[in-house]
Amino acid sequence: MRTQVVIIGSGPSGLLLGQLLANNGIDNVILDRVDRDYILGRVRAGVLEQGTVELLEEAGVSRRMHEEGLRHDGISLAFDNRLHRIDLAALTGKHVTVYGQTEVTHDLMDKREASGLSTIYDAANVQPHEFDTDTPYVTYEKDGASHRIDCDFIAGCDGSHGVSRRSVPQDAIRTFERSYPFGWLGIMAEVPPADHELIYANHPRGFALCSMRSEHRSRYYVQCPLDDRIEDWSDERFWDELRRRLPEEAAAGITTGPSFEKSIAPLRSFVAEPMQFGRLSLVGDAAHIVPPTGAKGLNLAASDVHYLFEGLRDYYRDGSSAGMEAYSGRALARVWKAVRFSWWMTTMLHRFPDTDSFGQRIQEAELDYLVHSQVASASLAENYVGLPF
Amino acid sequence: MRTQVVIIGSGPSGLLLGQLLANNGIDNVILDRVDRDYILGRVRAGVLEQGTVELLEEAGVSRRMHEEGLRHDGISLAFDNRLHRIDLAALTGKHVTVYGQTEVTHDLMDKREASGLSTIYDAANVQPHEFDTDTPYVTYEKDGASHRIDCDFIAGCDGSHGVSRRSVPQDAIRTFERSYPFGWLGIMAEVPPADHELIYANHPRGFALCSMRSEHRSRYYVQCPLDDRIEDWSDERFWDELRRRLPEEAAAGITTGPSFEKSIAPLRSFVAEPMQFGRLSLVGDAAHIVPPTGAKGLNLAASDVHYLFEGLRDYYRDGSSAGMEAYSGRALARVWKAVRFSWWMTTMLHRFPDTDSFGQRIQEAELDYLVHSQVASASLAENYVGLPF
Repeated sequence: MRTQVVIIGSGPSGLLLGQLLANNGIDNVILDRVDRDYILGRVRAGVLEQGTVELLEEAGVSRRMHEEGLRHDGISLAFDNRLHRIDLAALTGKHVTVYGQTEVTHDLMDKREASGLSTIYDAANVQPHEFDTDTPYVTYEKDGASHRIDCDFIAGCDGSHGVSRRSVPQDAIRTFERSYPFGWLGIMAEVPPADHELIYANHPRGFALCSMRSEHRSRYYVQCPLDDRIEDWSDERFWDELRRRLPEEAAAGITTGPSFEKSIAPLRSFVAEPMQFGRLSLVGDAAHIVPPTGAKGLNLAASDVHYLFEGLRDYYRDGSSAGMEAYSGRALARVWKAVRFSWWMTTMLHRFPDTDSFGQRIQEAELDYLVHSQVASASLAENYVGLPF
Repeated sequence: MRTQVVIIGSGPSGLLLGQLLANNGIDNVILDRVDRDYILGRVRAGVLEQGTVELLEEAGVSRRMHEEGLRHDGISLAFDNRLHRIDLAALTGKHVTVYGQTEVTHDLMDKREASGLSTIYDAANVQPHEFDTDTPYVTYEKDGASHRIDCDFIAGCDGSHGVSRRSVPQDAIRTFERSYPFGWLGIMAEVPPADHELIYANHPRGFALCSMRSEHRSRYYVQCPLDDRIEDWSDERFWDELRRRLPEEAAAGITTGPSFEKSIAPLRSFVAEPMQFGRLSLVGDAAHIVPPTGAKGLNLAASDVHYLFEGLRDYYRDGSSAGMEAYSGRALARVWKAVRFSWWMTTMLHRFPDTDSFGQRIQEAELDYLVHSQVASASLAENYVGLPF
């Protein structure tokens, strides 16, 4: 079997890349080691930058997002028992769209099926080969048989634990990492959200976030120790803790109800350089991880897709390799800006167990300055809505 | 002896406060444990915010500053072998004035003498008393005799190691502190500066600063280990190291010459809360220390003077205690903003010996974002020229 681009991983970045390529007449096959339902079962973030929305429009999968997605013109920062709104729209002329990553994936899968494009699920032992030559190929096993797909390029969209990055010689790759000394305990509940926009709260008891998936489905988080166990957190304990960390006016807006999802996730920053090894390019989580504060993960994957798509399009349309050669550099320049922003938001909004009293005051001074300075607010806002591609 | 306000310390903050009070008909006496020449021998920073300039104008000591001071409309940040100018004037409508602290002190001393105001130098064992009552007084010894000055208020303008803060019960005061794991090796030389504005450089070998006192006198600094000794740094070694840390275009502008001052200073952030204990108010370095990055030390002392002067003026003119009661809160709100800014400038521009590769990339990403984002540049600029009183 032969195609132009083999895409490893059918999460949103692989699907989006595949759709953009197909729309431009570039053949591609997506391989995934799991199946469609498993992928759709993953719970992920749901704040889309305008650039991500435009890329989904370009891919032709924006109809339901525009119908059901929520336009948010601002966020609130909460500290010192008060809410401070950051007016994203007034500060930047842009907004963000709340629409779950699962829904994005669903829409992309439906579009791919409708377009008759090839996705191979349940592909075992996927392995990229010879990507340091002009004739790379990918092997996998399915239904007891071994398969090989020859191609021009391989896109590694298979996440942090996928085979793509692991296939690169370790001495060809440099990694940068930061682990944070806390986790996020998150729940999902079928209740209306506390506010029509997101609330990021810094409180002496720890960070809290009021988010949502829709007008009827709320997503809440509280910072917790990394060794906490789900079993220790009854719904009652969660709701009590969440309310204690919010200003009274926000806590009063909480509608409680039974959670239908509850999990504890660690927070981590990670970047691998470069993002390209010959004919193999890494995309999204395969190359970098950001903590969820600021909701940059999916949006960063989308910007990687944008740069890689441009490179591939120029290669096939114009015979130019310039875009492909520039991929890692262009992607990483934006990656580091978003990694910095996510690190900064995380640092500013969480309580760190080992922070001394000076560091605590600096954090409070920064929040105070941030919400009272037009330009500092605008700096947060331009990063939150997404720096230009 | 009796006066309305006893000011302990005849550095620039004590002198400025005394002049503003005298101009408004409020009697004051300044006490200092050392003499005029000793005070004028101290080498200090020389970048004045517009608010500080206006306060000196209000005090009537701005003639020479306006004649000899240099108006700076921008600064440059240097990294990655390039200069990036931050246009302070365009971003904020304000500028800073380069005029040495020693000159400010000189002008204030001359004005005080010309005004016939009382300064007692070489006062030993200065001690504030009974400042938790309405009848405080200060004692000191001079020429073998003990003296006492009764007063309404005491202003502690005697620096970080002075008697004022030490006289407060330790359980009444809370301190916040951060030491930085490096020092500044500084030299002064009678040579024209490398550039007409300041250059703040971040380089893998460490921070460097090109500053000046006048068009003929340069002040240069390089970050150095805290345990380095002056004797290890010949002028030749200093000039070589400085040039290595600057972009080529800036290094080419360095004129070398024999240094006439050379010292190594540690960098420290420190804040004491509150800044007022009954009738004793702490001003400037007596209450807080900032690292020199960003040149906030003298300017922060000036804003303390502004708030304290307003409180005292309202007390004597209107019989209102509101301004005096608000002093600590008003001063500290601005102090923490400047402490945060100085900490941030220090953190962003220096190489920290224990920084991991992730932290190093974050620093580089922050500098890159800062100089390319209009609003991020404007945030630096509004802090550099000075937040409003």
